[in-house]
Amino acid sequence: MFHRIAADRRSFIAVDPHSDFPIQNLPYGVFSTPKAGKRIGVAIGDSVLDLQVLESKGWLPVASEGGLFGNDTLNAFATAGRAVWNAVRARLENLLDAGHPELRDNPDMRALALVPLAECTLHLPFSIGGYTDFYSSEEHARNAGQLFRDPANALTPNWKHVPIGYNGRASSVVASGHDVRRPMGQQLPAGSQTPVWDACRQLDFELETAFFVGTGTELGTRLTTEQAEAHIFGMVLMNDWSARDIQRWEYVPLGPFQGKAFATSISPWVVTLDALQPFRVDAPRQTPAPLAYLAEADRHTYDVELFVSLKPQGGVASDITHSNFRHLYWTMQQQLAHHTSSGCNVRSGDLMGSGTISGPDRSALGSLLEMSRNGKEPVALAGGATRCFLEDGDEVIMRAYAERDGLRVGFGEVRGRVTPAQP
Amino acid sequence: MFHRIAADRRSFIAVDPHSDFPIQNLPYGVFSTPKAGKRIGVAIGDSVLDLQVLESKGWLPVASEGGLFGNDTLNAFATAGRAVWNAVRARLENLLDAGHPELRDNPDMRALALVPLAECTLHLPFSIGGYTDFYSSEEHARNAGQLFRDPANALTPNWKHVPIGYNGRASSVVASGHDVRRPMGQQLPAGSQTPVWDACRQLDFELETAFFVGTGTELGTRLTTEQAEAHIFGMVLMNDWSARDIQRWEYVPLGPFQGKAFATSISPWVVTLDALQPFRVDAPRQTPAPLAYLAEADRHTYDVELFVSLKPQGGVASDITHSNFRHLYWTMQQQLAHHTSSGCNVRSGDLMGSGTISGPDRSALGSLLEMSRNGKEPVALAGGATRCFLEDGDEVIMRAYAERDGLRVGFGEVRGRVTPAQP
Repeated sequence: MFHRIAADRRSFIAVDPHSDFPIQNLPYGVFSTPKAGKRIGVAIGDSVLDLQVLESKGWLPVASEGGLFGNDTLNAFATAGRAVWNAVRARLENLLDAGHPELRDNPDMRALALVPLAECTLHLPFSIGGYTDFYSSEEHARNAGQLFRDPANALTPNWKHVPIGYNGRASSVVASGHDVRRPMGQQLPAGSQTPVWDACRQLDFELETAFFVGTGTELGTRLTTEQAEAHIFGMVLMNDWSARDIQRWEYVPLGPFQGKAFATSISPWVVTLDALQPFRVDAPRQTPAPLAYLAEADRHTYDVELFVSLKPQGGVASDITHSNFRHLYWTMQQQLAHHTSSGCNVRSGDLMGSGTISGPDRSALGSLLEMSRNGKEPVALAGGATRCFLEDGDEVIMRAYAERDGLRVGFGEVRGRVTPAQP
Repeated sequence: MFHRIAADRRSFIAVDPHSDFPIQNLPYGVFSTPKAGKRIGVAIGDSVLDLQVLESKGWLPVASEGGLFGNDTLNAFATAGRAVWNAVRARLENLLDAGHPELRDNPDMRALALVPLAECTLHLPFSIGGYTDFYSSEEHARNAGQLFRDPANALTPNWKHVPIGYNGRASSVVASGHDVRRPMGQQLPAGSQTPVWDACRQLDFELETAFFVGTGTELGTRLTTEQAEAHIFGMVLMNDWSARDIQRWEYVPLGPFQGKAFATSISPWVVTLDALQPFRVDAPRQTPAPLAYLAEADRHTYDVELFVSLKPQGGVASDITHSNFRHLYWTMQQQLAHHTSSGCNVRSGDLMGSGTISGPDRSALGSLLEMSRNGKEPVALAGGATRCFLEDGDEVIMRAYAERDGLRVGFGEVRGRVTPAQP
């Protein structure tokens, strides 16, 4: 089902060995330049290959009325389905190959279709109809349960049976680089019975990945875990900004609302599952075995390293977390099978977050809530600063890549800076 | 701000005194006929006035590139804002007035623009980007808390301070008349520690209203309760179908997910706040007083009677509930102010549900969960049948209208029939 690219393949475009975007990656995104509006491109090294140009010149194997790549989102291309994704990927791989002269030896076309990444503004890759956030890291669920809910019963009784998820707010998903305003909101001060309206004092990040649904489903139908993978277009990094004080006061009984509604940042390049195939690994063993509709004959995940750094205003960035996507207890296939288990339909462009990805070590915690033990143990930063939660001016930078045998397939980064509240 | 129509105004189109759609209502919807595709219309008596026809003939005071009414949703018109809504409403009132000859005496135009309601298929009125469901009935929150969570603390400590709401699943919102398949899902049988995968046995309805956001807001900005009303385009009836057994097992700690994701039905005609002005009443007094951002200088709601009937397959319909929109503790203005309180943006076409609307009497309960005391006290139907929860073939019909001094402004109905699960 997947279209892979050989690990030793090289592009005629020079790609730094530490680049996230070799020819084996080819992530899709939406970009604009000072000269032209939003269109779809593929990242290759320090360049973007403009697919609108390729399509308009008839260079892509796509026959769709109105085209797939002149749009300002990936929704139409993603809806077209895996056969089209495979054909386009094969063609792009060919066009960019060091041994293939068609684009390499056509300076006019190179001038038209290759744009320096540094000149591009990157946008949300999809029009996001639905945003669902799961809660699939056992370590995070235990940590958050202890700190937020009930130390004696950190993991709820359903957690090992249900890939817990909830509907998030799609309208406030923003692309990397968007400043995040500290929210105002209701909070219950410690020891008080009466809430106050104030600026959030416990602003946090959550290290997550997310996948975009490619082809959707019809209302009333379900996907098996086996069918689910073909519906996944690709993955991004996600920072699920969280106002812990607002969230704590509001979330019983119906879940998080304004505590997570003010912003969710995602990385702009969508890394396909094709590109991640060389990094396929077994997913954690599940005990007890899940119910049959969540069982996986071929249970697998991907070995993707995840990093968070925090940069205070005017200061230097400190690396504060190193986690891995493979830690997740529930796989993307199980998440999507569960999401459709009631007959709920999913649509192209739906965004599905993993939940905070914490690992077993203290160095692998995916939120400040966990690192600072809910504000009790400050996190040390370079230069002597400390943080329990985020301060105004702080910039959070998340990066991710998979690496093996000299091949790196990366996600780029998602970054966002905290700006002061507006009382 | 509102454009009202005098109570004694009459249309040249005959309107039954018990019709929901007199000239004082003029609700907007999206309809199609065997001869032509989806377009926007206004209900008047037993007819639909085709706004696409009026616009294309230059009969509407709208100057918008591409038009506002040739679309298959109301989003563009709603985005245009209150000044445009007022102008269009004034023009329609004039065109339909018994004393105004322009349409009345133009048989060609009448033949083109007036369609018998009976020939129309009615569709979802908006493309729904976000769907939020509130929990604003104190009676329902107390009843559900007792039956579902903790009898000793039925109302959570936040309830009187926060207009509790959660993000719902927008993709599975369907128009009235759509069959609803009984969902499959995980449930924890009574007394067991191990969940099973089975068809839902506790399928329920929830009697709600919902409003559509007209003009949206920018991320990072807030609406006051005073500003909020101008952003509300209009209201519909809503049945928030709920699988109680699935919901009970999944909802801690992040809220309802698959237990409410399989379908939410809404009535097709959007009743504007203009039409509801004659039915404006004081909203319930709030104790304790809400925080300042939720305070209302001019606190009001609308006196809209709500009815539920249940019709078993092959049987007759029984009226089982008579409630009222005015019972709600939190107003739509407070809901919308709270929704944007963190800076969360809202968009045209966002759907905001009231939560189940139960009243103080046993005859005013908005769900079978409450009526049957969680399955312990069966509800008697006409013909001797009883129900604790919904059975296959049952049809749930909700109706609503406001009535005063001989003027009725109604919502029409939302209906849906339960079809068997697909194991």
